[in-house]
Amino acid sequence: MSAIDVGLLSPVTMGHDDLVSDAAVLDALVTAEVALTRAWGAAGFAPESAVADISDAFGWAGRGAVCTRHGIDAAALAAASVAGGNPVIPLVGLLKEHVPDSARAWVHRGATSQDILDSALMLIAARAAAEVERHLARALENLVAFITAHAGTVAAARTLTQHAVPTTWGARAAGWSRGLERSRIRLAAIAGELPVQLGGAAGTLAALVERVGRTDASILPGFFARELALPGSATEPSDAPWHTARWPITELGDALVHVLDALGKIAGDVANASRTEVAELAEGAGGGSSAMPQKQNPVESVLIRSAAIRAPQLGATLHVASALAVDERPDGAWHAEWATLRELLRLALGASAHTATLLGGLRVDADAVARNLALTRGLIVSERLGIVLTPLIGRDRFAALIDAAAGGGDLRALVRALPEAAELDVDELLDPSRYLGMAPSYAEAILAEAHAGSADAASDHRTGGTTR
Amino acid sequence: MSAIDVGLLSPVTMGHDDLVSDAAVLDALVTAEVALTRAWGAAGFAPESAVADISDAFGWAGRGAVCTRHGIDAAALAAASVAGGNPVIPLVGLLKEHVPDSARAWVHRGATSQDILDSALMLIAARAAAEVERHLARALENLVAFITAHAGTVAAARTLTQHAVPTTWGARAAGWSRGLERSRIRLAAIAGELPVQLGGAAGTLAALVERVGRTDASILPGFFARELALPGSATEPSDAPWHTARWPITELGDALVHVLDALGKIAGDVANASRTEVAELAEGAGGGSSAMPQKQNPVESVLIRSAAIRAPQLGATLHVASALAVDERPDGAWHAEWATLRELLRLALGASAHTATLLGGLRVDADAVARNLALTRGLIVSERLGIVLTPLIGRDRFAALIDAAAGGGDLRALVRALPEAAELDVDELLDPSRYLGMAPSYAEAILAEAHAGSADAASDHRTGGTTR
Amino acid sequence: MSAIDVGLLSPVTMGHDDLVSDAAVLDALVTAEVALTRAWGAAGFAPESAVADISDAFGWAGRGAVCTRHGIDAAALAAASVAGGNPVIPLVGLLKEHVPDSARAWVHRGATSQDILDSALMLIAARAAAEVERHLARALENLVAFITAHAGTVAAARTLTQHAVPTTWGARAAGWSRGLERSRIRLAAIAGELPVQLGGAAGTLAALVERVGRTDASILPGFFARELALPGSATEPSDAPWHTARWPITELGDALVHVLDALGKIAGDVANASRTEVAELAEGAGGGSSAMPQKQNPVESVLIRSAAIRAPQLGATLHVASALAVDERPDGAWHAEWATLRELLRLALGASAHTATLLGGLRVDADAVARNLALTRGLIVSERLGIVLTPLIGRDRFAALIDAAAGGGDLRALVRALPEAAELDVDELLDPSRYLGMAPSYAEAILAEAHAGSADAASDHRTGGTTR
Amino acid sequence: MSAIDVGLLSPVTMGHDDLVSDAAVLDALVTAEVALTRAWGAAGFAPESAVADISDAFGWAGRGAVCTRHGIDAAALAAASVAGGNPVIPLVGLLKEHVPDSARAWVHRGATSQDILDSALMLIAARAAAEVERHLARALENLVAFITAHAGTVAAARTLTQHAVPTTWGARAAGWSRGLERSRIRLAAIAGELPVQLGGAAGTLAALVERVGRTDASILPGFFARELALPGSATEPSDAPWHTARWPITELGDALVHVLDALGKIAGDVANASRTEVAELAEGAGGGSSAMPQKQNPVESVLIRSAAIRAPQLGATLHVASALAVDERPDGAWHAEWATLRELLRLALGASAHTATLLGGLRVDADAVARNLALTRGLIVSERLGIVLTPLIGRDRFAALIDAAAGGGDLRALVRALPEAAELDVDELLDPSRYLGMAPSYAEAILAEAHAGSADAASDHRTGGTTR
Repeated sequence: MSAIDVGLLSPVTMGHDDLVSDAAVLDALVTAEVALTRAWGAAGFAPESAVADISDAFGWAGRGAVCTRHGIDAAALAAASVAGGNPVIPLVGLLKEHVPDSARAWVHRGATSQDILDSALMLIAARAAAEVERHLARALENLVAFITAHAGTVAAARTLTQHAVPTTWGARAAGWSRGLERSRIRLAAIAGELPVQLGGAAGTLAALVERVGRTDASILPGFFARELALPGSATEPSDAPWHTARWPITELGDALVHVLDALGKIAGDVANASRTEVAELAEGAGGGSSAMPQKQNPVESVLIRSAAIRAPQLGATLHVASALAVDERPDGAWHAEWATLRELLRLALGASAHTATLLGGLRVDADAVARNLALTRGLIVSERLGIVLTPLIGRDRFAALIDAAAGGGDLRALVRALPEAAELDVDELLDPSRYLGMAPSYAEAILAEAHAGSADAASDHRTGGTTR
Repeated sequence: MSAIDVGLLSPVTMGHDDLVSDAAVLDALVTAEVALTRAWGAAGFAPESAVADISDAFGWAGRGAVCTRHGIDAAALAAASVAGGNPVIPLVGLLKEHVPDSARAWVHRGATSQDILDSALMLIAARAAAEVERHLARALENLVAFITAHAGTVAAARTLTQHAVPTTWGARAAGWSRGLERSRIRLAAIAGELPVQLGGAAGTLAALVERVGRTDASILPGFFARELALPGSATEPSDAPWHTARWPITELGDALVHVLDALGKIAGDVANASRTEVAELAEGAGGGSSAMPQKQNPVESVLIRSAAIRAPQLGATLHVASALAVDERPDGAWHAEWATLRELLRLALGASAHTATLLGGLRVDADAVARNLALTRGLIVSERLGIVLTPLIGRDRFAALIDAAAGGGDLRALVRALPEAAELDVDELLDPSRYLGMAPSYAEAILAEAHAGSADAASDHRTGGTTR
Repeated sequence: MSAIDVGLLSPVTMGHDDLVSDAAVLDALVTAEVALTRAWGAAGFAPESAVADISDAFGWAGRGAVCTRHGIDAAALAAASVAGGNPVIPLVGLLKEHVPDSARAWVHRGATSQDILDSALMLIAARAAAEVERHLARALENLVAFITAHAGTVAAARTLTQHAVPTTWGARAAGWSRGLERSRIRLAAIAGELPVQLGGAAGTLAALVERVGRTDASILPGFFARELALPGSATEPSDAPWHTARWPITELGDALVHVLDALGKIAGDVANASRTEVAELAEGAGGGSSAMPQKQNPVESVLIRSAAIRAPQLGATLHVASALAVDERPDGAWHAEWATLRELLRLALGASAHTATLLGGLRVDADAVARNLALTRGLIVSERLGIVLTPLIGRDRFAALIDAAAGGGDLRALVRALPEAAELDVDELLDPSRYLGMAPSYAEAILAEAHAGSADAASDHRTGGTTR
Repeated sequence: MSAIDVGLLSPVTMGHDDLVSDAAVLDALVTAEVALTRAWGAAGFAPESAVADISDAFGWAGRGAVCTRHGIDAAALAAASVAGGNPVIPLVGLLKEHVPDSARAWVHRGATSQDILDSALMLIAARAAAEVERHLARALENLVAFITAHAGTVAAARTLTQHAVPTTWGARAAGWSRGLERSRIRLAAIAGELPVQLGGAAGTLAALVERVGRTDASILPGFFARELALPGSATEPSDAPWHTARWPITELGDALVHVLDALGKIAGDVANASRTEVAELAEGAGGGSSAMPQKQNPVESVLIRSAAIRAPQLGATLHVASALAVDERPDGAWHAEWATLRELLRLALGASAHTATLLGGLRVDADAVARNLALTRGLIVSERLGIVLTPLIGRDRFAALIDAAAGGGDLRALVRALPEAAELDVDELLDPSRYLGMAPSYAEAILAEAHAGSADAASDHRTGGTTR
């Protein structure tokens, strides 16, 4: 059997999907199985020898790490997964073959396939989300540098495709930053809450209770979680399983889509600003074209947008599956989640990495920015003119003045010709950089937060990837 | 022009959409305009007479209320909205016609259409979400009663359509409750964060800054929010506008879809349990059929499911729109949000109301539950049998025993015939009610929380609809 | 009860939804009921008096027309539709109240609610699709005029946002035309196939067979279809009903989404070409802005795009519902279709009407087109230069030449300076209008087809709206 | 670099995706490149030696076959595809390295990346669709056998989860067959129309026209299509390219979703009928459970449903991309199609194969069918009773009779006790098999068509996979 997908049709995810590859899935499945045995041990039930045998056989690498030296063949397991509809069923058989008789009963003890698969997906998701957060942190750092450099770059703001009023590139990028940071926080929040699944055959933990009683059974999921470095308490009764209340899947999915929305917005703005006619931005390394050597395609933006276009519908599939999660395990809805969630993780990983690169290399053509700003020959400040002139000359004369300018008249001369405007500093009045509103403040706010964040980070080096 | 939609094709939302009707939208638009004027007044800029004139002209009803006595005709406004692409443009004209000359300049001052439309949508959303929360609170109360009544009703748990192990109806309903409560909390969280929009022409508040300077301009959105009873501070600078960082729309959309997922899960379980062959549940008032008088259709469940099937794709549309929110106002993506968000609110309102009713009237047929539990003639506890018997008779003999029972043999007799089982209490071993695992605990936990919640509520009667 | 939706939040559909309003739905439901009675009469079973009584009571207006003078109140019916989950149940009761005792048994005879609702939706869909086709025909006519006018307007073609090679506005519009025509043909094909539904309680027509036997029962759906002017034969046995094989819904939905895709593509190109920096196109009546009088927003394009962004997810909902159409009538999936299909029809009606208008008023700024074409200072024909020069000077020197030009050099001078190019007509070589490839042919092909189509139409005035 | 996906999370597609694997994509890309060179040769422009060199270098295998012995490494190519955003750019470089200098200019001549990628996708799609059609043909054959066996198996028809009237398993399966056949025909229609893409840099074929003039350039796409065994004429001018009119992608996507809808409907019915309480159907090889040996999970149905739940949203993504196909190549929308279309093909391949297997092994438990049919103790024919009895005893007495029976009374005795029913054959009246309506006819019609189809197939063995 040959590999079915090495990334040829998905350049945006290519090279960024190690954490969610089938190899990673398999590692996580094995890790979940070993962690379950270790939980039995930590709770005082499994003998140390069985825990050691199973941990050793599959390369247990410590809490928070995944087992990679387990010797299971992913492709063979995939082939064997069809008969029962999931890969855990044949995996359990394989694992049992590889441990001593005495340890065998402690493999998969009390669990159902869904426990292992759901927990493995959470483990993968937690690791992938942390990587996405790192990419986003890098993107946000690059945004800070961009805002710093371009806080004063006055540019045309556009609404419904048309020049509206002036803004700055720093303010626009501050908007990107706010959107991205919001999505990062939401992802971090849900990624920090991803629960293990341990419910047994139908979510009642009956096989655990049968063996160790209700009190100990209620603690075991906490031990399991601890081995997987997922949230949970080894002293308090755990929350009930979520076998058919699929919020960990859908909230994670929504958070990933949210991230991709924010990335898509940035990429869309970069792509538009890269248009030959606009030319305000250029990517650091534009994609070339052999046939048309003059082209500098905004390839990063294109790839990021391709991911943002795909993500919402994948998120919707997770919700459809959640709404159809009938009984104690549904007849298809659960299975529909796996590849869908993985693809969303993949898109978020790839698009966030590309956005970090994009923002690191983004170049502003100040001449083009200024040239565009002047395209409406002063009318970009017409809102300000209205505020200032209407009290002086009335609405009708103001409208006529704008019409004259829009029709080709010289706005500066038209204003200067107004007797009522004699006292006005017309140059100042028409200067776009004097009509920026809060734009500078919005950029400054991001820079101030970043500065504060850096100070925090310096004072507390333990906070890891989720702090910016 | 005739009304285009009175609910004929959407029975699930029929009668539950007053808060999101076009009349409600118009009220909210007017309210946002009046609130803006009042914010100018509260900030010390607009003269009291202008504030009073405008407030009076359109029926200002106090903070947190909406203006309903404004005299604007929704259908005419809708017709006039096409030319500019949104209803605010003609609304501003109409409003100005209805106020004295002296107040006219304080209508819509410094705002753009998007400020009013987005803020109005947030106002509508906050009110509709509160109503959804009330429906959910009622649904959760009814669930508590259901769980109380059926904590001990032992029933078959089903995975992949097949009987798996025993559970209780109380435990299953506890799962519904956890899923629903999670979605309620998420909705409440985002509903409590819905921000006003005030950015001016292109998100820089330039017209405000032009008039009152940056410091005062930065405070004005807070005054605006206060008039609309939306979050915000009238003393601290406000957050930047979200004109193209659309998280308030998408997070709200996701939360609503999440609610509908949880409702859909419940309705799906009720529909399945209502099947003629299952017959464990019946809705309080099943829908009849004139041609087939024996039928008791689970109409509430059917309607709720119809909403849950539709919601995820509407949520996806909001994300697509968010990802396409280019420039300072995008060329179509913003406009795609309005009707979509409203439909999601409508579905959540209708489905949550129907679920509250459904859960209030849900009846359990204990005989059918018991009959179904016995359908596998004891094999529903085969997992327990394996735990107990395999150590005694080995895997092979155990498998043979189960095969014999599955093939029609008398399970009780087969177990009794085992010499190794002489010491076992076979009746106890085969009793489904002795193999419930944590099911009773999960039901108890919900009841304990509800009790604690009621105590909390009793001690603090001011917390309103978001507390259960 | 107040109207819930008069179009305030959906300017793109405003004024274009008469054929799909709730009033229209009600008319169609009544029409379907009357048509069923008439089918019984035409088949020789219902007495003429009953047919006449029922036809008269509800304003039968002839085959292919809908009953509008039936006296049923839509809002009251909508309210009554909740209990049973659909409006047909209370409608049948109301209808029976309004006919003489002797005719009562011929109301709804042998039918189930789904028969009437599905058939009414098909009737509405056929009429709405015909209207969409008329809008598309008008759009295509306007496109022909546009292509005629601009077949020779040489313009920059853009790939991945960058100027690539020259094309013409006529060729680009020819692409619009081909895409639109394809979607029109597909819509016409499915609109011409929309079947009535007549299956009785569960798709077996048992109540009909009970009364008139299998042979006559098999013909009755054909009579029913004939009364509704839907396809069907009154002499051959009809196809089986499609109560749970929902292709008429999904194929129609797909065709409508396809139309909206084609409209969205056009609107997207117009919006981009309307950007202040591009300015090649302007809508006939751009939307104004009171605050920024210089703006000419491409409002038609914006509205059309808003519809195109929303449509695909609505189409997906119809497919989800179709895939979930279990049993002989599913528990929610059927109900999810109604409002969804109607919204798709509404979006197609509105967006197609706006596109016809948009294309009728579209103006080209030839100066801007030429100015943009020159933006790359000749490099837009670099592909051609490569073809011509590489054989003469080799790849390396050609690359160096392009680099020099891209870096600011004068391309014309650089080429003229090549000794190997002495024989070349450099002006011709660099003339974008000499490197148009098939662009003129593609435009001509559309014009030739349109001419042929007009000739056809002139020779056969009976072909109606579906012929272009 | 490791393989990222071998199928572990997608058991439904596992083993059915050879035709759409990345290896297959690479083969198709190479095939498209070689076919282009061969088209130049066939048209009389490329020298025979160059055609032979290039054909030999990459293992040309004849029209309609794909090149598999080309020596290109998919993973390396995938890695190289990121810089330019698609795999064709680096592929062209690699191909040129592997051919003699003299042939090099005939590699990728006149084409752009999109030409090759789109054409390769069409080639893959045509082959995959043919395979899906073969699976569907097998499924339909198995359905015919099922219908033959169960045309007389009288069963309860269910609407809104409740028993409605009798039907037969043959009639229900006939409905499956009609739905599936409709989707098969639609897929075959679009699969037979999939066009090559050849437009050059921006859809004008300028590089071709430059080299060979407009007449020959217009024919070249036809030669190209012929080499790929895709539709096209080598003598008539080809249709314009579809670089931004994406109907081949969306119509194919819609047809695949349609297929998956039909498969999902079947799987949903099988899953419901497999419920422990219903037990009318069992899959040939139910999935086992080690912990619960009594279970026979309907794994095929579960997997098929998982695909049907995922497909509609993928189809929607293709439409979103189509609607966003601006310019002559859009900035992300094109790239979003590739993986999405491939996943849809994969789901259709897997789900259709599993459905063929499912239908081949499906077993009916006639006892369970009969037992269920009797569950309403006769009331399943209440519609018939109403038709027969109401004229005799009036509506009120009939309603009372049904109420009495629904409340537990003996329906047979209640009817027999009616003086007015003295003449009736009550056993016949209450016999579900005497109230089947058209059910037998619908089953017969499928069998008659199948018989006719077999006769057609026997008389024309050349028609291949698209004939059933």
